[in-house]
Amino acid sequence: MLDRIRIVLSRTSHPGNIGAAARAMKTMGLTRLWLVDPCADPDGVARARSSNALDVLQGARLCATLEEALEGTVFAAAMTARQREMAPPPLWARAAAPQIVGYAAHGEVALVFGNEQAGLSNEELALCRLPVMVPTNPDYSSLNLAAAVQVMCYELRLAALDPGAPPAPENPPATLEEIRHFYAHLEAAVTQSGFLDPAHPKRLMPRLRRLFDRIALERDEVSLLRGMLKTFMKKPGDKVD
Amino acid sequence: MLDRIRIVLSRTSHPGNIGAAARAMKTMGLTRLWLVDPCADPDGVARARSSNALDVLQGARLCATLEEALEGTVFAAAMTARQREMAPPPLWARAAAPQIVGYAAHGEVALVFGNEQAGLSNEELALCRLPVMVPTNPDYSSLNLAAAVQVMCYELRLAALDPGAPPAPENPPATLEEIRHFYAHLEAAVTQSGFLDPAHPKRLMPRLRRLFDRIALERDEVSLLRGMLKTFMKKPGDKVD
Repeated sequence: MLDRIRIVLSRTSHPGNIGAAARAMKTMGLTRLWLVDPCADPDGVARARSSNALDVLQGARLCATLEEALEGTVFAAAMTARQREMAPPPLWARAAAPQIVGYAAHGEVALVFGNEQAGLSNEELALCRLPVMVPTNPDYSSLNLAAAVQVMCYELRLAALDPGAPPAPENPPATLEEIRHFYAHLEAAVTQSGFLDPAHPKRLMPRLRRLFDRIALERDEVSLLRGMLKTFMKKPGDKVD
Repeated sequence: MLDRIRIVLSRTSHPGNIGAAARAMKTMGLTRLWLVDPCADPDGVARARSSNALDVLQGARLCATLEEALEGTVFAAAMTARQREMAPPPLWARAAAPQIVGYAAHGEVALVFGNEQAGLSNEELALCRLPVMVPTNPDYSSLNLAAAVQVMCYELRLAALDPGAPPAPENPPATLEEIRHFYAHLEAAVTQSGFLDPAHPKRLMPRLRRLFDRIALERDEVSLLRGMLKTFMKKPGDKVD
């Protein structure tokens, strides 16, 4: 789906922002950049800021008008910093992303970003179906253009690809039985050391269990802890295993 | 809650990134920037890139070490681009944000970003409790530093303002300092018991730290564990406290 999303930058003033936007796109797996009447062609500054996303920058399509950049799309969303009169109510970035990705199942879609100082004109906004806002600090909403591209491409990536669980832990977890044996061992150790008074156990063992139960102990970790308890329990003169 | 979150940039190479990070923070309502041993002082480039977030840039605290930047915090999360050996399993940015904000209900917290080229060192990562990853394109994961700050501050803002965020932990968490003392106590205990051979420490303490780091120990639990260690360390004839 991400291959069908055009990032359209309209009348961008600073070449550095074009380069940084290309980099931001590529980190999130988007590659199709369209530039509408940029105030400066992508130059050395843009190339430097694009880091190794030169392919995205060099593949950018140059257009004279936003209409041209939207040709062939089935849906266009437009970034705006404020609600505009006569425009449909905006969606927050997080709510808009799945909708944009949903349309990409049907064809080409575009996400349009305006000029750094003035944003999109009302005429440009009227060419798009959905205004989108990034929630910002009401006292300082001056999101950098490439930063806005980064946030939106991040949301689009998450909407398109559920990143799923972080990499699964590599190490085998302890079985319930191994954990039961560990708790029995721990209880014996704290009883021997005098920390647990069997006549007045209070809530010592439940508190210790609550502590260790919060993590999924690995098998090797249970062995490690039990090896440690053994050394705590040995009496003077005992041999170390 | 956002007032209690320190954004810590460690050994940043490019002043422009410091300025852009300050701007990214302010757009999301975060203001507390800490700089650990930056390779260059914030200069004209930093000021230009900070746009009107000069207050954040000028209020930045300079520190010599990451330890110093983490002083007084109850929780620290660290950005990483990959899963590291011996570190706890990472959380994705979106899952980590509510957890970081939850800890901020109890005190100061930190979110740490490493150097542009090398990221955080393993030693720096070991000072933090939770590794955090931004999901990226596996073929091009070169997220710009300020762009990563932007994405994380965006997630923190949404987590802080979202009324649907999970409830903060009820019991006060241990501070990083209390946890450091616990590890020192544990190391003394296993050294005395013979479980740790100081001449051949192998990876015993890193393994134990990796285990306890995952628990997010509460303050009372650290006291409980240290009380237990005390009884393990007493010699025959010692009085019980």
